[in-house]
Amino acid sequence: MTEPTPQPLSRPLAPTGTPVVGIIGGGQLARMCAGPAAELGISVVVLAEADDAAAAQVFRHAPVGRCDDREAVRALAAACDVVTFDHEHVPDPVLSALESEGVSLHPAPAALLHAQDKIAMRQRLGAAGLPVPAWSMVHDRAGLRAFADQHEWPVVLKTPRGGYDGKGVMVLTGPEDLDRAEEWFARADASGLLAEEAVPFTRELAVMVARTPSGEMATWPVVHTVQEEGICTRVEAPAGDLDPAVAQDVRAAAQKVAELLGVTGVMAMEVFETGRSGEGERGWVVNELAMRPHNSGHWTQDGAVTSQFEQHLRAVLDLPLGDTSPRAPHTVMGNVLGGPAEDLHAASRLVMEADPGARVHVYGKEVRPGRKVGHVTVYGEDVEDLRRRADAARHTLQGTTPEGQEDAR
Amino acid sequence: MTEPTPQPLSRPLAPTGTPVVGIIGGGQLARMCAGPAAELGISVVVLAEADDAAAAQVFRHAPVGRCDDREAVRALAAACDVVTFDHEHVPDPVLSALESEGVSLHPAPAALLHAQDKIAMRQRLGAAGLPVPAWSMVHDRAGLRAFADQHEWPVVLKTPRGGYDGKGVMVLTGPEDLDRAEEWFARADASGLLAEEAVPFTRELAVMVARTPSGEMATWPVVHTVQEEGICTRVEAPAGDLDPAVAQDVRAAAQKVAELLGVTGVMAMEVFETGRSGEGERGWVVNELAMRPHNSGHWTQDGAVTSQFEQHLRAVLDLPLGDTSPRAPHTVMGNVLGGPAEDLHAASRLVMEADPGARVHVYGKEVRPGRKVGHVTVYGEDVEDLRRRADAARHTLQGTTPEGQEDAR
Repeated sequence: MTEPTPQPLSRPLAPTGTPVVGIIGGGQLARMCAGPAAELGISVVVLAEADDAAAAQVFRHAPVGRCDDREAVRALAAACDVVTFDHEHVPDPVLSALESEGVSLHPAPAALLHAQDKIAMRQRLGAAGLPVPAWSMVHDRAGLRAFADQHEWPVVLKTPRGGYDGKGVMVLTGPEDLDRAEEWFARADASGLLAEEAVPFTRELAVMVARTPSGEMATWPVVHTVQEEGICTRVEAPAGDLDPAVAQDVRAAAQKVAELLGVTGVMAMEVFETGRSGEGERGWVVNELAMRPHNSGHWTQDGAVTSQFEQHLRAVLDLPLGDTSPRAPHTVMGNVLGGPAEDLHAASRLVMEADPGARVHVYGKEVRPGRKVGHVTVYGEDVEDLRRRADAARHTLQGTTPEGQEDAR
Repeated sequence: MTEPTPQPLSRPLAPTGTPVVGIIGGGQLARMCAGPAAELGISVVVLAEADDAAAAQVFRHAPVGRCDDREAVRALAAACDVVTFDHEHVPDPVLSALESEGVSLHPAPAALLHAQDKIAMRQRLGAAGLPVPAWSMVHDRAGLRAFADQHEWPVVLKTPRGGYDGKGVMVLTGPEDLDRAEEWFARADASGLLAEEAVPFTRELAVMVARTPSGEMATWPVVHTVQEEGICTRVEAPAGDLDPAVAQDVRAAAQKVAELLGVTGVMAMEVFETGRSGEGERGWVVNELAMRPHNSGHWTQDGAVTSQFEQHLRAVLDLPLGDTSPRAPHTVMGNVLGGPAEDLHAASRLVMEADPGARVHVYGKEVRPGRKVGHVTVYGEDVEDLRRRADAARHTLQGTTPEGQEDAR
């Protein structure tokens, strides 16, 4: 039996010297590279999940193929100078095959592993002296109980791979929750599950860093990612009332991580602010890493000299990095989750009517309940006013009502 | 004889409610709509001159066809909600046919005429009391001489249609230049040529205005378009040392013109600053109109809350207009003309290395001598420094040396 030979992709038509970036995955992160790529004169080819994927709608070259289809990925790579990712779900064997064939992958599989595998990440960061929550691998109820005895309840149980946006995470408040963990243990592979202390954090922060293959690095200001029921609804840049020494420490740590792991492209480091300092405590611990443009960096499209999407393209092509300075004292980004407003275009019109300064970004996705379908940013000097505007705009785009304002309808 | 039936274009795949804008012409002005269209969730279909046209490289949907091919244009219109333009060269019969078929054209032919035909423009604006240079239609040497006797030499002779970037314009300094005009008279049609006083201007200014079909309007600050040998090399926003009353008058006049002519989309109004005031003089006269995004508005991509490209899309779709406020005290845009640097990507790298805050924009065009192939913007507080940075960046992109700096090499 032979596999069908994939159609060879040809390099895009473009002027002499134009570099070609391949992106595996056609989601909104790939889509939002469209503007910067066009402006910088970079060709992009997207390997999209479907012909109507978010990014497939906006790029000239978006062949349809699965990220676990080695031949599809290989055909993409053959048409490109470098290959990068819209998500972290490309299987290891596909990545390894590409790498062994000399494809320039950014980030490289050895770096990407630490965004795919929470255990690898915690081991490596912990060994390098970076603050991580207390953790252990557990294989059964007894192991979990032992961990809880040592670190106290509640305990957070995570699947080492594949979790995102609260999926693959279970919070166990006490021994009475042990039954709920049974099913996860049954499905876990030989390495088991990750048990973590439930860090008593004051808020969640994030920082983006970019690193080029040549080793140039740049970070943006540390932001506050405001969560509601485990979903980030708002990002405030920079994080308000953050001790400048802590902000500097977090930015420096992101650079240290990027360098340590050999990250190329942009990386998000999500952080719990603990407020605990002294005695080896630095006031924060690392929660997650993402090696690609990230929701916590969307504010940079309107709020920084160089956006995360432009910077990612520059970084993976080993171009000099752009200025990451903020353009306004405060930028607030509001996420838009699928709600009652099914026609996002009609909803966008309402936002434009209400707030000519609101920057609307939609992802070309059909609205489904809770699905991330867009975001909005506002910037200026008065953070309270910006919060109000961002919330008003995102609720309008969702077709929902801001909490406490039901009466105002 | 029957014409070949064009392939029907289908509407692009996109979520419910997504509007589709057709753009006739695949140059850089269409190309630079790519980012805003992707972010706002607007589908774009470009009728491109060639498969490798500037805009054809970056849009998913870019059928190749000529703007004077009625069937190609009709097929584009059938796939779109509205149709707009990358240039002003679509022949009248094509426009009329579309309009009679109910296609939503922005601007409409009756408005566009005033950007295509300098005579129609001067008649209409003059009649409305807007300041235009003294002008007359001349049909021969004797008529030209009579105009010069009345208005003094030098006289500017223009073809009523088709001129741009100094083409179709001849400056006659005295009677000894009359011989040079003979050839133009021989080629002119029955309406003749446009003779104009050579306005003794102190500098050239420009203003962009956007207008929606509903009549909403917005203008950006008046800019100074710095010319070298008839070509704009730099744009400074806002124009320095401009009397605020004159700036306000120019902005208000642009709105008056847009309303008078029924413009929809964005329009550039190029202006000569004369410095003459009083006795019916307002300190400026209208030079040209362009009803599309314009070089004098490129600074808005990085220097204003809403760029001219986003605003044009919003305007032609009758969406509420965005905030046109500047984002920095000064923004300077430098045009990049084809020069010794044939590999624009390599040249871009040099600019990124030298100036991380410089915003590079390239058009996906092969470099040819003098061809507009990109621009660069910088913004900040110190206009002298911004001029220096913009000039340094554009010369690097061109592979040329700033005047007076040959020794510094």
